[in-house]
Amino acid sequence: MAATKPSFHLDTFLTSRTAAVNTALDRFLPSAKTKPATLHKAMRYSLFAGGKRMRPAVLLAAAAACGGSEAAAMPLACAVECIHTYSLIHDDLPEMDNDDYRRGKLTNHKVFGQGIAVLAGDALLTQAFEIAAQAQGWPRYSHRDLILEIARASGSLQLVAGQVADLEGEGKKISAADLRYIHERKTSALLCCSVRLGGMSANCTPAQLAALTDFGYHVGLAFQVIDDILDVTQTSEQLGKTAGKDVAVQKATYPSIVGLEASRKIAAQLTAKAFGALKPFRGKAAALEALAEYLLKRNK
Amino acid sequence: MAATKPSFHLDTFLTSRTAAVNTALDRFLPSAKTKPATLHKAMRYSLFAGGKRMRPAVLLAAAAACGGSEAAAMPLACAVECIHTYSLIHDDLPEMDNDDYRRGKLTNHKVFGQGIAVLAGDALLTQAFEIAAQAQGWPRYSHRDLILEIARASGSLQLVAGQVADLEGEGKKISAADLRYIHERKTSALLCCSVRLGGMSANCTPAQLAALTDFGYHVGLAFQVIDDILDVTQTSEQLGKTAGKDVAVQKATYPSIVGLEASRKIAAQLTAKAFGALKPFRGKAAALEALAEYLLKRNK
Repeated sequence: MAATKPSFHLDTFLTSRTAAVNTALDRFLPSAKTKPATLHKAMRYSLFAGGKRMRPAVLLAAAAACGGSEAAAMPLACAVECIHTYSLIHDDLPEMDNDDYRRGKLTNHKVFGQGIAVLAGDALLTQAFEIAAQAQGWPRYSHRDLILEIARASGSLQLVAGQVADLEGEGKKISAADLRYIHERKTSALLCCSVRLGGMSANCTPAQLAALTDFGYHVGLAFQVIDDILDVTQTSEQLGKTAGKDVAVQKATYPSIVGLEASRKIAAQLTAKAFGALKPFRGKAAALEALAEYLLKRNK
Repeated sequence: MAATKPSFHLDTFLTSRTAAVNTALDRFLPSAKTKPATLHKAMRYSLFAGGKRMRPAVLLAAAAACGGSEAAAMPLACAVECIHTYSLIHDDLPEMDNDDYRRGKLTNHKVFGQGIAVLAGDALLTQAFEIAAQAQGWPRYSHRDLILEIARASGSLQLVAGQVADLEGEGKKISAADLRYIHERKTSALLCCSVRLGGMSANCTPAQLAALTDFGYHVGLAFQVIDDILDVTQTSEQLGKTAGKDVAVQKATYPSIVGLEASRKIAAQLTAKAFGALKPFRGKAAALEALAEYLLKRNK
């Protein structure tokens, strides 16, 4: 009798990983009462605002695919979530995207004021490196490698570059290539970095790291194309943030440049490439595969 | 015939170290033409705006006092200067101190706009960790230790905490103890960190590190008390920034709380403590001693 392959329970995985990440973040961050309390409250407000913890999830799933432990991966998972949260706080500022809501809640500067919002973002970015430095080093991947990985994905050539290009592209007609440049940096860079860090936390082989890089790059791009699609197809209530915002500020998106159906095709193609990248793991990457499917099928 | 002790030429030291730091920073940073050019121009605008490079100077001097090499100390010197510059860019923003001039030049947001100024600061903070990760590790001080040192001095309990307390203290009557809390965090933390990193880059002994910590803490506090004094005693032209700004925004300063003469006494006492901390180096800390004297006697 052949054993049937057990189906992977993504909901269970996401719920349990989110809880574990939240517990770890709570331990790494100073308490909300720690002086200066306003700052720590502001940092925690956005960090615990109900994010999907997608970057920690792919990081932990990548670690599992390479036979690593959650304990070794967790500090890095918390570090990337701090980076992600800082970038959202600063992106939402009036001088940037000027968003009042995020995940159904008032944005950081709407609650704490612009000055504290800038500083809470600064502190979370700094905290990310403090947490990452406390991760375990490995024969193949030293602290030097881990810190460089995070700094490069978050720096002036990647994450910040994406936000600059996004800011400068508002109200202008940009090409599909320019839009890809933005998406690669604003979303793909940190998602890809998360997947790679998961592998590195498991002391993965160079071949495994190459496969994870390929996976992370394509899933990251798909993720952002879908974000663009949802902005034009969903209501604010469904999204938990201001829908139609991209159209209102004439922000270039995949649907506005190539149309809705072509955008859906691009998202599907990118996800197919991501799945292809996971082949070397031969069935050990159940969580990563399930996550990729979830990212393509999500409706908010 | 007893040999006369050669006097230390601080001007020569500062000029040559500033040039060396500038060359190294230029190599570490992406060129001004690197995409996104606006961002890299903005980062370089503030980084090369004629800063005194005081933190790199004390770092390199501390390394020399412990018998270390400039090559080993230089990446860390560049990292702390990136942190210092990022903090100035964000501190000058309209939602913070709202300063139009810094070192005689328009502040970053006056030239590039608020959005780019926030992002240039973010990118410099991230760049600091990328550069620091490229420093040499040591038997006593690993990359983990170096990154933790920088992250803690710059994080929510130190550098950012100081700016928050400063922001929240504006227009309020605060105590001398509160003011000391601000100064310890806004200035002393990163200066102390710089001195410690210099020692760490030379693989210094724990006793040397303790002495450097004591020195850095007191010099840092003295430095800020003098800044407060200069704000009320000098003109904008002499300072290269808006003079009397602290008084205009009712910012608490040492002179406003304890008076000008008492402030001068405190600065002198702090510097005496700093000199005392250098005793264990027995004449090997000429550069550090000269720097401390310079910081106390400066008039801009």
